[in-house]
Amino acid sequence: MGELTPGERLPSTRELAASLQVSRNTVVAAYDMLAGQGYVEAQLRSGFQVCSAARAFSGLPISGQATEEQKQIPSQPGVPVPFRPTQPDVNLFSLQIWNRHRTRVLKRGSCLLHYQSRFPVGLDELRQSVASYLRDSRGVRCEWHQVAITNGSQQALFLLASLLLQPGQRVYMEDPGYPGAREAWRHAGATVIPMPVDDEGICLPHQDTRHASLIYVTPSHQFPLGTCMSLARRLTLLRAARDANSWIVEDDYDAEFRYASVPQPSLQSLDENRRVIYIGSFSKTLFPALRLGYVVLPPPLVERFAALKSIVDDFSPLIDQATLASFLESGAFYAHLRRCRKHYAERQSYFLELVSRFGLPVRFPITGRGMNLAGMLPANVNDRVCSDRLRLAGLDVPPLSRYAVEATPPGLLFGLAAFDKRAIHRGVSKMAVALDGERASG
Amino acid sequence: MGELTPGERLPSTRELAASLQVSRNTVVAAYDMLAGQGYVEAQLRSGFQVCSAARAFSGLPISGQATEEQKQIPSQPGVPVPFRPTQPDVNLFSLQIWNRHRTRVLKRGSCLLHYQSRFPVGLDELRQSVASYLRDSRGVRCEWHQVAITNGSQQALFLLASLLLQPGQRVYMEDPGYPGAREAWRHAGATVIPMPVDDEGICLPHQDTRHASLIYVTPSHQFPLGTCMSLARRLTLLRAARDANSWIVEDDYDAEFRYASVPQPSLQSLDENRRVIYIGSFSKTLFPALRLGYVVLPPPLVERFAALKSIVDDFSPLIDQATLASFLESGAFYAHLRRCRKHYAERQSYFLELVSRFGLPVRFPITGRGMNLAGMLPANVNDRVCSDRLRLAGLDVPPLSRYAVEATPPGLLFGLAAFDKRAIHRGVSKMAVALDGERASG
Repeated sequence: MGELTPGERLPSTRELAASLQVSRNTVVAAYDMLAGQGYVEAQLRSGFQVCSAARAFSGLPISGQATEEQKQIPSQPGVPVPFRPTQPDVNLFSLQIWNRHRTRVLKRGSCLLHYQSRFPVGLDELRQSVASYLRDSRGVRCEWHQVAITNGSQQALFLLASLLLQPGQRVYMEDPGYPGAREAWRHAGATVIPMPVDDEGICLPHQDTRHASLIYVTPSHQFPLGTCMSLARRLTLLRAARDANSWIVEDDYDAEFRYASVPQPSLQSLDENRRVIYIGSFSKTLFPALRLGYVVLPPPLVERFAALKSIVDDFSPLIDQATLASFLESGAFYAHLRRCRKHYAERQSYFLELVSRFGLPVRFPITGRGMNLAGMLPANVNDRVCSDRLRLAGLDVPPLSRYAVEATPPGLLFGLAAFDKRAIHRGVSKMAVALDGERASG
Repeated sequence: MGELTPGERLPSTRELAASLQVSRNTVVAAYDMLAGQGYVEAQLRSGFQVCSAARAFSGLPISGQATEEQKQIPSQPGVPVPFRPTQPDVNLFSLQIWNRHRTRVLKRGSCLLHYQSRFPVGLDELRQSVASYLRDSRGVRCEWHQVAITNGSQQALFLLASLLLQPGQRVYMEDPGYPGAREAWRHAGATVIPMPVDDEGICLPHQDTRHASLIYVTPSHQFPLGTCMSLARRLTLLRAARDANSWIVEDDYDAEFRYASVPQPSLQSLDENRRVIYIGSFSKTLFPALRLGYVVLPPPLVERFAALKSIVDDFSPLIDQATLASFLESGAFYAHLRRCRKHYAERQSYFLELVSRFGLPVRFPITGRGMNLAGMLPANVNDRVCSDRLRLAGLDVPPLSRYAVEATPPGLLFGLAAFDKRAIHRGVSKMAVALDGERASG
């Protein structure tokens, strides 16, 4: 990539396949993967070209008119209420392609249906595909046998809590932070110590962390504020964990959805002391009903993790695992990510344009990434009251204080990914009416 | 059913549909369900007739020749080694029918793919289907909202252990018994007290059980011995649990596979004090890779169970849940059970005939049911040594002592369900050679 400049055209898939003497499908898959990662983009009838991250973002349409394509998407039963956070748009997911991979792996014979308790941490082929994906896309340093497949990232959190924590031990986590993680630590009997988040990420006073058994962070895109942890803070955190001999659990939540820049590599990629445990999920990148997540474990933990997973539920469903491995290997996953990224970026941009046009009293300090946006309210507003008012208007916009243990600046969390422009327009209009009093009183 | 006698012909599906003014599909599904439960059987070109249980068993073919149908089943990669226990024959499962149901539920729209954390204990439609199945087939007394869906029965055991047990509390369980359950109780810090099993089931000295927090039993078909708990013992057990105020976990393992008689209703059906928690799984009746099981909870436990399931892994995969609900409702499940029962009965019968023909030194006290058979060895034989010798001959036949904490009479556990007659013949021939020395020394 170092030799290509933004805007430069890549050789056609046919040319490159011929010159490298590989199949054209391989080249298409590689291009799809690069495009999925945001390095290149497809141009209609002129192949792929190298992206300029800035241009990709500035070129987003911000028109108020829904396109014909969007008008044709029928409204589905069960679709979440705007702007419920952390909902992917499952209508962007091609079940047809997924099912094609499923049919392919089922043709291999009946071995997939059998009792395979020798795979408590997943099918080897899926662990290998996930390891390649994480190495290539997230800079994670791992061998495939360090990857364990779980039922979503929630199970990874639960198993790690059971494995690593004794009652009374201390867990440091961002505040506001992810409630599912807090519940997992508390269930294991740990004392959860809330740490404030500034514009560089989690704040760790050095003398305190010496007693930490585990530090839980979302460095790529802090939940719920959206902060990306600075390099300086990452290095401080790694040093603190080394000094305290504590584990860091890196939840790489929402890392794939960067619109204005190439994603930062994972915290795990900077770790020299094997203290970082990396977790992630396909719930947001594919669809939530799938229930497949993963954890990258330091080698000494793999065996104990597998033994615990066996006791908890033997192993995760095998047909989905094999289908996902095939879906990843084919490049279809990267094509899907690219498609989501394009739509999510457009939706976020459109939402911000409308908020500004309607003059809503909400400020969005961190944009250009993520499925959600944290919107800050004027300091004298009670975000719970505000959220309740929006609920009465038919909107599901939780207050930031719901995610916090300590007092936190008032704000609201908006999920934008799952909603097309029409739904966003309708939602923002409703907000304008509902928050009118807020502005007057604020 | 009380008005029909064995051998009596049922009205044709067309006649009955017309007279009841329901669709013919409904009648076909009802007949399939009755046949699946072993009450009626299909006769080629003459419709359904009422079964005599005894006749159904005595009429099994015991010929040494594999039928043409069996010769045509190709050997698949990943098929377990004979006679590995507790393996269903996944080749009997129609993935085609299963996939038809999957396609049907996916046509409903995208709501199934969404994040549905309001369903921690399963899709309502599946909980309803499972409740009907358990009421009709196993006599379980429950409302559908008492049913919780889990990732196989192992997760049910794990969640119950976490929910009901404090470190140091006592769990009584059958010895030999199911190791997966023992691990779950021990993981929760409980002291597991092994109780012997006689020909009526678990032996419970009354004074002891006053300190039991939980009693774990497999009454329909004791794992691994195959004993069906007598009615007297069931009533004693229920009284003991009431007096000790302890929970009973009934693992209804293998209950569906009765060949010589109609299955006994569940222990739960006799319980007046809501102390019995009933668990089961589709791993053996459908296919192990599916990972769906269920637990029927006394009403006061439902909410706490759901809260724990949320922390552990949010919820189980939704597409499989919806597919299974449709599969159950259509009657396809009962048709599949009937098919398995027929083949498993034939295989067991054929195996016993061969063992007797080869004069093997193994005695099978309990037959006519189950996917496995416990074979008792002469008292002076070490079953581990014997199992090792069989392993060298390419057979996977674990010793009964592997499942026991205390000394147990020597024996071996044979799984027969997954192996066709050719494989059984080959396996028994190998055994005859491998055990020849045993007979001489025994």
